[in-house]
Amino acid sequence: MTPSRREVIAGIGASAALAMTGVPVRAQFPGGGRVRVIDIHGHYTTAPDALREFRQKQLAAVADPSQAPARAMLNFSDDQIRASVQQQLDFQRERGTDITLFSPTAGAMGHHLGNAATSLEWSQVCNDLIHRVCTLYPNNFIGVGQLPQSPGVSPANCAAELERIVNQLGFVGVNVNPDPSGAHWRDPPITDRYWYPLYEKLVELDVPAMLHVSASANPNFQGTGGHYIAGDTTVFMQLLMSDLFKDFPALRVIIPHGGGAIPFHWGRYRGLAQDMKRPPLTELLKNVYFDTCVYHRQGIELLLKTVPIDNIMFASEVVGAVRGIDPESGYHYDDTKRYIDAMTFLSETDRQKIFADNARRVYRLKV
Amino acid sequence: MTPSRREVIAGIGASAALAMTGVPVRAQFPGGGRVRVIDIHGHYTTAPDALREFRQKQLAAVADPSQAPARAMLNFSDDQIRASVQQQLDFQRERGTDITLFSPTAGAMGHHLGNAATSLEWSQVCNDLIHRVCTLYPNNFIGVGQLPQSPGVSPANCAAELERIVNQLGFVGVNVNPDPSGAHWRDPPITDRYWYPLYEKLVELDVPAMLHVSASANPNFQGTGGHYIAGDTTVFMQLLMSDLFKDFPALRVIIPHGGGAIPFHWGRYRGLAQDMKRPPLTELLKNVYFDTCVYHRQGIELLLKTVPIDNIMFASEVVGAVRGIDPESGYHYDDTKRYIDAMTFLSETDRQKIFADNARRVYRLKV
Repeated sequence: MTPSRREVIAGIGASAALAMTGVPVRAQFPGGGRVRVIDIHGHYTTAPDALREFRQKQLAAVADPSQAPARAMLNFSDDQIRASVQQQLDFQRERGTDITLFSPTAGAMGHHLGNAATSLEWSQVCNDLIHRVCTLYPNNFIGVGQLPQSPGVSPANCAAELERIVNQLGFVGVNVNPDPSGAHWRDPPITDRYWYPLYEKLVELDVPAMLHVSASANPNFQGTGGHYIAGDTTVFMQLLMSDLFKDFPALRVIIPHGGGAIPFHWGRYRGLAQDMKRPPLTELLKNVYFDTCVYHRQGIELLLKTVPIDNIMFASEVVGAVRGIDPESGYHYDDTKRYIDAMTFLSETDRQKIFADNARRVYRLKV
Repeated sequence: MTPSRREVIAGIGASAALAMTGVPVRAQFPGGGRVRVIDIHGHYTTAPDALREFRQKQLAAVADPSQAPARAMLNFSDDQIRASVQQQLDFQRERGTDITLFSPTAGAMGHHLGNAATSLEWSQVCNDLIHRVCTLYPNNFIGVGQLPQSPGVSPANCAAELERIVNQLGFVGVNVNPDPSGAHWRDPPITDRYWYPLYEKLVELDVPAMLHVSASANPNFQGTGGHYIAGDTTVFMQLLMSDLFKDFPALRVIIPHGGGAIPFHWGRYRGLAQDMKRPPLTELLKNVYFDTCVYHRQGIELLLKTVPIDNIMFASEVVGAVRGIDPESGYHYDDTKRYIDAMTFLSETDRQKIFADNARRVYRLKV
């Protein structure tokens, strides 16, 4: 029996999962049952190779239906799934992260490829795999989904899969791609009423959305260093100019990668809001959050000293955009916990907010 | 007789200009003849209204040639020109900036509008106006130009106007729009050989280019807060992935607006370069510079502590993107000199590099 979403996020899901899978219950966490560090931004970039093969066949089938892959090729054994997330588990243990909000590889969502049917199948497949990981390791991973978006297709189209992942799979959030066209930016801005059916469903289900672009099909935009950061930035500017949160006061969105350029240019955005007779940024921060995927100490310091602490959630984007070890520090660039640990100006309360309390509030987590 | 470029940038142009216009020579600067603070990024956003009217007629004439404006409508008197830059002069005096590298309004370049002929006329008109300002106030303004770029048209097309503004008008640099399509990003990346004829001419003339986008025609990108900052970021990533500066070791480019998101995500870009087996960012910094158009103190601090000082040039983008007064400080957001003055960790040598020496080197200035 699949536990309901409320059971999962209440942590009761852990014992339900135990009954199903035999993995330890959440009470075994060091520190007495509550997690201390929640990473809100991890991707399943280490999924078994067959997933990539499935996708290649699936895309080939758009032109030639005889290429269509069977879902059976994704019937991984538990051991295969376990092996595929071992690196994630190692990083959690080494770095001191307790649990990760875990979603399909963002760059592989590829909403610009194929059509709406392709995106639906691909979303189901990827979300189901996330669910398998979360079911095997309920103490380490909580599911976040991807949606069957497609350029030019109404986001209303995503409602059924969103309901499924939240109500049936117990996912606590979703990645929404603000540019399904793949760095061509051909769909309306995310503040356009075009997107409202999706927001209505997000509010109804009470889950937040990370506004996370996918791969770039435009040679001007490299993915992880170009399109991602440019996308984060322009999406925030869209929000700044709109009354979206007047229409959806309960909607919560996360701008990943430390908010793109926004914290660095905080004065610019404060000033632009003022020049445009918009409310101050603090008003926007009732609904907008940033993660800490910023890969050097100076950047993290600026983020924490500029954006209100209540709006910052710990994240590393592991295993993700940058995989190397910084020769200057001897540690991985994306070991963001280390940078935050070094911020001695943070109070214990603020540190706890960044590492867990804000995520509990925004994602309605009970862990 | 128009002074040659070498005369102008040697400061001799000031006396030539004196002979023409009767304004004081450069030796009258406080401090004995050499400027202390050079603002490398100022736009003529306060040009007389007739310039906008000219442009409207010019664009209307693309469909209906009978609308074509006469250049005579831009025959402003010296007093009209003087009045139009009074705000700039006031800001220079109040803030302690000695001289500004002054270019046409970036957002008004609008290369995506009209066609190559439209862009050529518009560039000539705007550059000529900059020249008039610089001729009237040789102690306050040095010219930087715009180019007759047009989407899908080879940048080789810009060579003649570039030669004119450098050799005949004495301009010391030029704004190159990395996205002439107006936030649709339809032309090749700036590292593509498509752009090489322009780089050959820049190297031949020994002038640097600020890579500055213009207005956005894509509703996803607001201009000054969306397209500008996203453009700066993606252009740097293009450079990071290419061997452009192996082909053009003498080419110098400036990424405006503090380099977009780059300094904030310095660790990400260091890590991406490493993962991609590219040279370290320090290699790129032999040819790439950032300005200080970052409108809050935390941002400026990060910039100065992250990017090598030799690669940072003072700028304010006045009168520009953000015009208001920050209620928290009581000063204009874009009074960037104030933030730098507050950085007590800077040595006098470093401060001088940021305020003037780096600009002298990059733009070959003798002021």
